[in-house]
Amino acid sequence: MIRTYLLEHRAEFIEQLKCLVRFPSVSAQPAHRPDILDCADWLAQHFRSIGMDVKLCPTDGNPILVARAGVACAVPSASRAGVARAVPSASRAGAPHVVVYGHYDVQPPEPLDLWNTPPFEPVVRGGKLFGRGASDNKGQFFAHVKAVEACLKTGTPLPVNLTFLIEGEEEVGSESLMKFVKNHSRELRADYVIVSDSSMFARGLPTLTYATRGTVAVEVRIDGPSRDLHSGVFGGSVANPAVVLSRLLASCVNGDGRITIPGFYDGVMPVAAWERRMWRCLPFDPEGYRRFLGAPALAGEKGFTTLERRWARPTFEINGLTSGYQGPGGKTIVPAWASAKISCRTVPNQDPARVSRAVERHLRRQCPKSVRLTIATGSNPWFFAPPNGPGAKAALAALEKAFGGKPVCAREGGTLPILEDFRRYLRGEIILVGLGLPDDNWHSPNEKMDLGNFHRGIVMSMELLRELGASAERDCASTTKSASV
Amino acid sequence: MIRTYLLEHRAEFIEQLKCLVRFPSVSAQPAHRPDILDCADWLAQHFRSIGMDVKLCPTDGNPILVARAGVACAVPSASRAGVARAVPSASRAGAPHVVVYGHYDVQPPEPLDLWNTPPFEPVVRGGKLFGRGASDNKGQFFAHVKAVEACLKTGTPLPVNLTFLIEGEEEVGSESLMKFVKNHSRELRADYVIVSDSSMFARGLPTLTYATRGTVAVEVRIDGPSRDLHSGVFGGSVANPAVVLSRLLASCVNGDGRITIPGFYDGVMPVAAWERRMWRCLPFDPEGYRRFLGAPALAGEKGFTTLERRWARPTFEINGLTSGYQGPGGKTIVPAWASAKISCRTVPNQDPARVSRAVERHLRRQCPKSVRLTIATGSNPWFFAPPNGPGAKAALAALEKAFGGKPVCAREGGTLPILEDFRRYLRGEIILVGLGLPDDNWHSPNEKMDLGNFHRGIVMSMELLRELGASAERDCASTTKSASV
Repeated sequence: MIRTYLLEHRAEFIEQLKCLVRFPSVSAQPAHRPDILDCADWLAQHFRSIGMDVKLCPTDGNPILVARAGVACAVPSASRAGVARAVPSASRAGAPHVVVYGHYDVQPPEPLDLWNTPPFEPVVRGGKLFGRGASDNKGQFFAHVKAVEACLKTGTPLPVNLTFLIEGEEEVGSESLMKFVKNHSRELRADYVIVSDSSMFARGLPTLTYATRGTVAVEVRIDGPSRDLHSGVFGGSVANPAVVLSRLLASCVNGDGRITIPGFYDGVMPVAAWERRMWRCLPFDPEGYRRFLGAPALAGEKGFTTLERRWARPTFEINGLTSGYQGPGGKTIVPAWASAKISCRTVPNQDPARVSRAVERHLRRQCPKSVRLTIATGSNPWFFAPPNGPGAKAALAALEKAFGGKPVCAREGGTLPILEDFRRYLRGEIILVGLGLPDDNWHSPNEKMDLGNFHRGIVMSMELLRELGASAERDCASTTKSASV
Repeated sequence: MIRTYLLEHRAEFIEQLKCLVRFPSVSAQPAHRPDILDCADWLAQHFRSIGMDVKLCPTDGNPILVARAGVACAVPSASRAGVARAVPSASRAGAPHVVVYGHYDVQPPEPLDLWNTPPFEPVVRGGKLFGRGASDNKGQFFAHVKAVEACLKTGTPLPVNLTFLIEGEEEVGSESLMKFVKNHSRELRADYVIVSDSSMFARGLPTLTYATRGTVAVEVRIDGPSRDLHSGVFGGSVANPAVVLSRLLASCVNGDGRITIPGFYDGVMPVAAWERRMWRCLPFDPEGYRRFLGAPALAGEKGFTTLERRWARPTFEINGLTSGYQGPGGKTIVPAWASAKISCRTVPNQDPARVSRAVERHLRRQCPKSVRLTIATGSNPWFFAPPNGPGAKAALAALEKAFGGKPVCAREGGTLPILEDFRRYLRGEIILVGLGLPDDNWHSPNEKMDLGNFHRGIVMSMELLRELGASAERDCASTTKSASV
């Protein structure tokens, strides 16, 4: 019956996803604030329409959506009390409480001229939905929404008590959600937290992710003369902020791709033997990967494989450089200032605060007195949980059922800052089951969601909820049994 | 009578100069092409109105103005034949042929928000005319125009045969004028070439400039992946073009301000003893200079004074840096490309072509294979002529008469590319008598022309032409005399 529902609504689901992608919900750009609000409203309405209790919670930033349904809620509840409303807890109802996380905000779409079709006018081509946010993260969390809809609309009892937690600030650091889970940790406490905000290792290779990297963001600004100066008349007698910036940045990485900031690598966990074994079995073609990236050659820290460089090694990346004259032709000036946006990726078991201090201290030590140096930093934690808990086992089973192939366990190079807060305040086992593909162009032009993965993701979500519910029942039965002995 | 004319027309001259500054004749920005043409037309009309023969010569770039008047031309000639029209040569008329050079194009006005008043709405405040191009170069060449006007309008015979050569591409390399002086070298051949496109050493210190630096411009672009990549998912496995660019740039200059490109300093002429003696006598206050630049400290190549660094040492300056995301907030990407606009200043006796090749060779050698490197170069020559010719003597006398103080001889850090072409094709002695002041903000916001300098510059121009005419007469007389012995 559920399968029939899914088959009959395939086209409708895609149309709904297109509606969702159409919102230019760019959290980094204040001008898109109205689009953020419109997107949240649309989602709230959508959750209501499938029969969930919804609360759109205002924050200092962008609203957070909390949508709930319990094991008994095959028929929509009339209550609208929202977050604070008691959800049948795992202990009371015998069913676990599962939180499904997602984010409705997206990365800026720039550079616009590299998109084949406009980023916020989603189109389906070759079984893929193209549009900013299609894969990161709208298409992924929406698969879980559709799984729950299929249960609720077909009168199938939900196997777990469920809470969707959908935020609008993931791309700018999840600040509001961090406060929110802290302030509502009692109501939100979960047995499992499902996050589909990562990618499979390859098409057709369902993947359970057990680690992510963290970030340390550093914005550097060098101020020299009070205004742009004629480089002939004054050049040579005053520090050039762009030259100083280049020298500072160059002092952070050597020609072997090794970061030369003292203390930067402190605490870095070596790749374990079981991980190396697992990764060696992954189908990875370096030349195909290079072609996909379009770079003349792969590169990175000497002494490590490409997968190790992406998953288990920290990085120092310049995300943007700005100084002086950028228009057509030339302008012979000593620019008044120069700036760089930097983000480092951190790995287990680095201490983000120490890394941040190490970078700042190094830059300040290297910087000459002939300029003013301003540094702003921020950081987000890495995540690491070996894939051997009951949630991981349920996920591996669900992935195999839905995708029809043996799933793999992998790390992820990107960052999901909120995982640390989930670990601390929601406390359940975190399950990372990404529905993205490596060529989905996250944060790049021509982002897309594979619609095969979207539909299989819906099935995976239903299977996973069933597994989690069933494992709780088994636990309960075995506890009863052992108690009766 | 001339003095009376000048006094009576002071206010009118300023109004005319304001008209000239109002044209946004920015040669680097194609959108301003119509303004360039309007400015040239206005000037042609103006030269005609004061009684000169004018030809507005079209080029592949911006038009060149050629305005002429001969020793007999106190009354406007009716001829409009232009360049090719024979001017009484020094030998025929006994008077030297003097070319006065200037340029009506200006630097881009950006950054606009740092201007106190709009760059192309000139205003007089405190005896200064503020506006882009007021000092570089409209106000300076216009002083010579007003000197000639005063002669022609008061029926005073010009002491020399005179040609104004006013171009519209100085700020983008004078390409058209270079071709023009080569193609018209016979008609333009001169005994003296007067150029007022530099600054006095200080207010009240009239200055004869005898050397300028050259430039080698280098635009570098580093291409890495075919698109911006997610710095988490892919970062660490591919070269970051902004990191590579920073390392390349940093490899060109060391912490002592010394350029580390092999061969870069080949041929650099040491500062001569007579120059050191002269420069030591100049009133230079390093702390006042630092305050004027607004930098935390002066800096530059170790082992040299500030004046040596500005005048006699080559430099490596980054004029602009561009890469990745430059908007508000962050964007965690490995940018697809990074670029830098660089300009080096060269000094006597460096070979610009060799410097250019040295920079390119060094960058190519340092660049890793994991990115694509594109380099575009161009260069302009330095100029050097010890101040001991008859033109220099005439200039020193004229400066002293007009400004009432002992003039000084100095070098100039900026570049006047066309001087080398003047030397080669016009062949006369080149006389650099700048009317700018060091705080005129050339190439910077709030450019201004000191109106005291403007008015004294008119007097200086008349005195200089008289001296040059008189020295020719003396030479002629002494030749006759010695021949009769």
